[in-house]
Formats: sequence, C-alpha cells, structure tokens
Amino acid sequence: MRRVHPIEEESYRIMRELVDLSHLEPLSRAVAERVIHASADLEYAVSLHLDERALQSGYEALRHGAPVVVDVNMVGAGITARETLCFVAHPRAREKASEHGTTRSAAGFRLAAQEVGEGAVWVVGNAPTALFELLAMAEVEPALVVGLPVGFVGAAESKEALIEGPLPSVANRGRKGGSAVAAAAVNALIYYEEA
Amino acid sequence: MRRVHPIEEESYRIMRELVDLSHLEPLSRAVAERVIHASADLEYAVSLHLDERALQSGYEALRHGAPVVVDVNMVGAGITARETLCFVAHPRAREKASEHGTTRSAAGFRLAAQEVGEGAVWVVGNAPTALFELLAMAEVEPALVVGLPVGFVGAAESKEALIEGPLPSVANRGRKGGSAVAAAAVNALIYYEEA
Repeated sequence: MRRVHPIEEESYRIMRELVDLSHLEPLSRAVAERVIHASADLEYAVSLHLDERALQSGYEALRHGAPVVVDVNMVGAGITARETLCFVAHPRAREKASEHGTTRSAAGFRLAAQEVGEGAVWVVGNAPTALFELLAMAEVEPALVVGLPVGFVGAAESKEALIEGPLPSVANRGRKGGSAVAAAAVNALIYYEEA
Repeated sequence: MRRVHPIEEESYRIMRELVDLSHLEPLSRAVAERVIHASADLEYAVSLHLDERALQSGYEALRHGAPVVVDVNMVGAGITARETLCFVAHPRAREKASEHGTTRSAAGFRLAAQEVGEGAVWVVGNAPTALFELLAMAEVEPALVVGLPVGFVGAAESKEALIEGPLPSVANRGRKGGSAVAAAAVNALIYYEEA
C-alpha cells in the first residue's frame, strides 16, 4: 500500500473544499482529483471527458503489468511507480520523422507499436501529432488512451477526435493538458485502491 | 542556432493573436511567451512576475555554463538542451527528509547546495517545500531562481515569499505552475538569441 504524504492529504482536503467531485464514479473521481491536485487548475473539473468503463480497462491493464507507452520523457518522469516506454529520442524516430515529414513524438509512437502488442496503455501529454498518429494505427488496440496533449496547434482537435472515436480513453476538451496532468491521470489508476 | 519546428512557429503565431506581450522587455517577453506556449494557459500573461534584470542574470549564467539545479526529475526531463542536477531520488535525500521531517525535494536542494557554488540557476517546478528551503539557504546566492511550484499547499505562499525577497527570480502569483512551465521558463533563456 502506498503511504500518502501529509502534504498530499492536505492538498486533497483543500481541493475538496473548492470542488465537489463526489458524484463521479470511483475511477473517474480518482482521475479527476489527481489531475486537479497536480495542476491546481479547477477547470479540469468541467473539461475532463471521463468514461468509467474505459478507466476500468486501463486500471486492469495496469494491474496486470501492461506496457505504458508515453509520447515524451517528461510524462515518463512523472510516472515514478512504473517503467514506461518512450521512443521520442530514439535515433530511428528522428530518421522516420524527417522521412515522413512528421514529428519525432509521432514517429516514436510508430516505433512503439512495433514493440508492444494489444492492450497497452498509451499516454500523450505533449504532442497532438502523436495522438493523431495513434488514432491512425488501427492495429494497436490500446487498453486505454490517456490523451492530454497541450497547445495551440492541434491539441483540442486531436482530443476531440479521440473522444468522438471508438478507443477507450480519458481526455479533456480544449487546449490545456500537459505532461504533468497526463502522468497524474495514469498515477491515479496506478495508486487506486478498491474500497 | 536552434531550428524552430513549423508547429512551434504556428503556435507562437496563434498565441500572439490571442495575447499581446510586445510591451514586455526582451527576456521577459521570451519567458512569458514560452510559458504560455507550453501551457496554453493565457492566465500567465497576467500572473507572471517578470524582472528583466533578474532574467538577464540567469541568461548570462546559463551562457557561461552555470549549473542548473531542479527540484524534480520532470523539470529536468523538460530541459533537453542542458544537463541538470536533481537530488530528489538520491538515497541521502530520503534519509535527510525523514531525519528532518521535510520532503525529499527540500532535502535534495540541501544536498545540491553542497555540490554547486554561487551563481547557479535553481528551478522549482513542483515542491513549495523546496522553494522555502532554498529561501532559507542564505549561502547559495543563485544567479536566478525559477520559482513555479504548483498546488494547493504552500505554492502561492512560497512564490509570494520569493517575489517579496531579495533573490533574482521569476515566478507567478497563485496556485498554478508546474514542471512544464518551469522548464519552459529556463528553455526561453537557453534558446534566447540576441537581436
């Protein structure tokens, strides 16, 4: 069992005075609260797209040791309780990116798809291009897509496409997102303890 | 010279349509724009506390290869163009933290202070306790403190103390902040090119 630091307890207490998420189902609430705890941004209480069944799928995959693929190393650095896979800095990602006129994050996801089978957890905390690439790889069949890229170019659009599509996912609406909130969403599932 | 990716160019173009920061002095503008580019959060346009002289001090330190100390590994993962120092995961940080009833981030800053001399750049993207610890270490004499911790417990207070104090700093007012914006502020100075 994870020991919760007193500062984290105090943070959750203050957060719960500011926003009431008790109407959410258990995993949805765990994810929403950890995202808001990590960002101190109450906007996520309304902008997150939460689907308990999708989160259940991700939770079970993580419990059974499914690989966790991340788009950038910052996301991996935020998931301290688990190994993660990231190919953004791989020499072949650089090559593939310039060959195909795409980003290294997107090329990294292509490389990852060759390494992991179905049922992995895929996490995007930075690059909309990586999320669009993932949506184009029908063969991947993720257990869960954590889609929380950030920015002015394509972030909102890529998340809309994820939310509208068939993959089990957690995402938010709008431009905000980022490595810290993506890691927080995954950590919420890793740390979750059934009552 | 750093090659700017077309997506980054487009992001800056959109951002500049949404918020005008052209009244700021050069380094202040560079930091504000990169923080907003990284977070897609326009609130930083008003919440950042920017001091051109402090940023000049940090810029020159970075140009001359000053050490960059970070509170957590996520911040280091976001600063890809430079080596950074982080002691949060050091076994002695864990020991010191439980001995002194502090956090590992704060204890990590104590360890770092023994390793680097005056004139380093100190970066807090996560832990208010690390920022408070830094403010208590009179001997450190940083070239710049990037103080952008996040959260409901102590983040706003630690940044107020930094802003009110004598150290050259960049910070924001309020609870928001985080690894990505802290890394962005440092990257703005690393990437800055004089006109």
